[in-house]
Amino acid sequence: MMPDLQDLRKEIDAIDNQMTSLFEKRMEIAEQVARFKIENEKPVFDRTRELEKLKSVSQKTHSNFNRCGIQELYQQIMSISRKRQYQLLQEHGISQKSLFTPVDNLEKENVTVVFQGVEGAYSHAAMCRFFGNSIQSYHVDTWKDAMEEIKHGRARYAVLPIENSTAGIVQDNYDLLTAYDHVIVGEQIIPCQHVLAGIPGSTLSDIQHVYSHPQALMQCREFLDSNENWCTHDFSNTAAAAKKVALEKDKTQAAIASPYAAEYFGLSVLKEGIFSNPENSTRFIIVTKDKIYQKAAHKISVSYELPHESGSLYNSLSHFIYNGLNMTKIESRPIANRNWEYRFFVDFEGNLSDSAVKNALCGLSFEVQNLRIHGNY
Amino acid sequence: MMPDLQDLRKEIDAIDNQMTSLFEKRMEIAEQVARFKIENEKPVFDRTRELEKLKSVSQKTHSNFNRCGIQELYQQIMSISRKRQYQLLQEHGISQKSLFTPVDNLEKENVTVVFQGVEGAYSHAAMCRFFGNSIQSYHVDTWKDAMEEIKHGRARYAVLPIENSTAGIVQDNYDLLTAYDHVIVGEQIIPCQHVLAGIPGSTLSDIQHVYSHPQALMQCREFLDSNENWCTHDFSNTAAAAKKVALEKDKTQAAIASPYAAEYFGLSVLKEGIFSNPENSTRFIIVTKDKIYQKAAHKISVSYELPHESGSLYNSLSHFIYNGLNMTKIESRPIANRNWEYRFFVDFEGNLSDSAVKNALCGLSFEVQNLRIHGNY
Repeated sequence: MMPDLQDLRKEIDAIDNQMTSLFEKRMEIAEQVARFKIENEKPVFDRTRELEKLKSVSQKTHSNFNRCGIQELYQQIMSISRKRQYQLLQEHGISQKSLFTPVDNLEKENVTVVFQGVEGAYSHAAMCRFFGNSIQSYHVDTWKDAMEEIKHGRARYAVLPIENSTAGIVQDNYDLLTAYDHVIVGEQIIPCQHVLAGIPGSTLSDIQHVYSHPQALMQCREFLDSNENWCTHDFSNTAAAAKKVALEKDKTQAAIASPYAAEYFGLSVLKEGIFSNPENSTRFIIVTKDKIYQKAAHKISVSYELPHESGSLYNSLSHFIYNGLNMTKIESRPIANRNWEYRFFVDFEGNLSDSAVKNALCGLSFEVQNLRIHGNY
Repeated sequence: MMPDLQDLRKEIDAIDNQMTSLFEKRMEIAEQVARFKIENEKPVFDRTRELEKLKSVSQKTHSNFNRCGIQELYQQIMSISRKRQYQLLQEHGISQKSLFTPVDNLEKENVTVVFQGVEGAYSHAAMCRFFGNSIQSYHVDTWKDAMEEIKHGRARYAVLPIENSTAGIVQDNYDLLTAYDHVIVGEQIIPCQHVLAGIPGSTLSDIQHVYSHPQALMQCREFLDSNENWCTHDFSNTAAAAKKVALEKDKTQAAIASPYAAEYFGLSVLKEGIFSNPENSTRFIIVTKDKIYQKAAHKISVSYELPHESGSLYNSLSHFIYNGLNMTKIESRPIANRNWEYRFFVDFEGNLSDSAVKNALCGLSFEVQNLRIHGNY
């Protein structure tokens, strides 16, 4: 006779009670193992012992399916044990020294800040919004130049775009974070809205020529198409287009540029909201050379390389979740000269002084290659 | 007294023996549950029952750490059970209808294939390598055009670059996979090596002018700098530069282009290995409209959107690992008009007919939004 579903579930519940109690006993003994390891300065992660354990439990099963299942289960159980052992190490004050120094506040007065682009560009706007006006600033041609400026101490901070809400991450700047030993100390989101701007006194009906970067012209195509008689002209960047219109003082000319550029070059905004995506924003990071973080910082960016092993990506991520850390972003970039191998970038919520964070980073450092902490901000 | 490590390990071994035997008993009963479900046509995945189980086991633990640990463990145990149940369903000839049809082989003879770029470009080379020479092919200007061609049935397959080993993913083509309901049926890796090519009979000492795409010129900067008297000229793409040199038949001209372009336009290779990264390769995907996969396919690409919830990224990935599926890649792209929300793209090893894959995709479909299977190849 077919057994009743309720009876089967009762049997399962009974097994689960036993398994739960065995699990707790096992964790208790794992704690004693940890104390032994602490006394004897042995490492938490013992790969040989773990492989032996996987072999021995799988040999005790009676089907191919269960052999595979029990191995999966024990990989997880041993990972949980390890995490508890790292917590205990932490409680005993045994942990890697942090290279980062907490500060109350970032110095934002009378510091020198470098940004890529020109005055009036979105990165210029991000800088002004983040630092206010009591700074010295200058601009360079490339993002790499900005990194070099802070490397050589000519600027204290650099402002770089890292992600646009429509276009995605700025891959080059992820690579620069890897290439330079600099630290993210802040971020600033700037709405990227284009406006049509002309010289003061001009009106929409005066306009015959519109100047902008080709991408911006494309993003405002719908608006431009509604004015048949306008002639559009490509320009190297939107701020430069605004500058040209301001310098030439011709009522028939307008630029598509940011409201910041319009204001900076003294132009009048003739039409707002001409970009087809009204929510479009760019996130900028503030980078410096000193390994510091604000005591109130709540977001951490790390990156690491993984060995070519099944499950290594998942196992690395488990260190965040077992420590209750919420990952907000994961990205990968190819590793130079190692075909089809990747460096993973993870953003998660936390502060470098939290024990959960220390715990996760400690565990992670044993399992991944070239772990980097890019900053806490 | 501190207990001996050997004694502790013996205790752990004893616990593990009991746990292994309980695990096997639990799997036995789970099989009976599966038979009951098959008889009564009930679904394998019972979310309510699973959530209740997680709650009840976690209530039996005595620390926050164990509460979290036992939940992780039971998510895994229930996933293993489910996997076994899907296997049994399959043995009874009951399985969910798949939208994908397995085929023995892809049709590669007398089909029409579209690629972006020009003859002699890397995508052209990828197409020839994948399909051989018994096809009709033509090219279009943009990747989107290629997707449109197969959408409207003018071509059976399209060839698109998806990732370069140095530069990373081609973001636009990830977005096109989302925008179109097409399917990846194959991939082809092509080494992206530049050569210096001149007209037949020319030698290195004849050369005075070098034509290529600015990026290629930059990638070969070291080689170019070693020949002081050469004048470099920007060109729209490397294959077009090769074509120009071939057409003008001037011994003083050379192009930096792919070996495929050199061969296609009948040029002589004057110097190989001039690119600073000798390992540089690009991975192309072969896309079609029909939802098919080869029976021997071993790699699956999926994507999904996640709710704004703590741990949702990690939980979604757990479906791959609990089913023993090796993730080989994870990427994210912003979701249009939803600021700072992402669609995640995961590549993993497997075939759509594997029960582990069915289990993972079924579990995933309950936890993520807008799950898409982009192909099995």
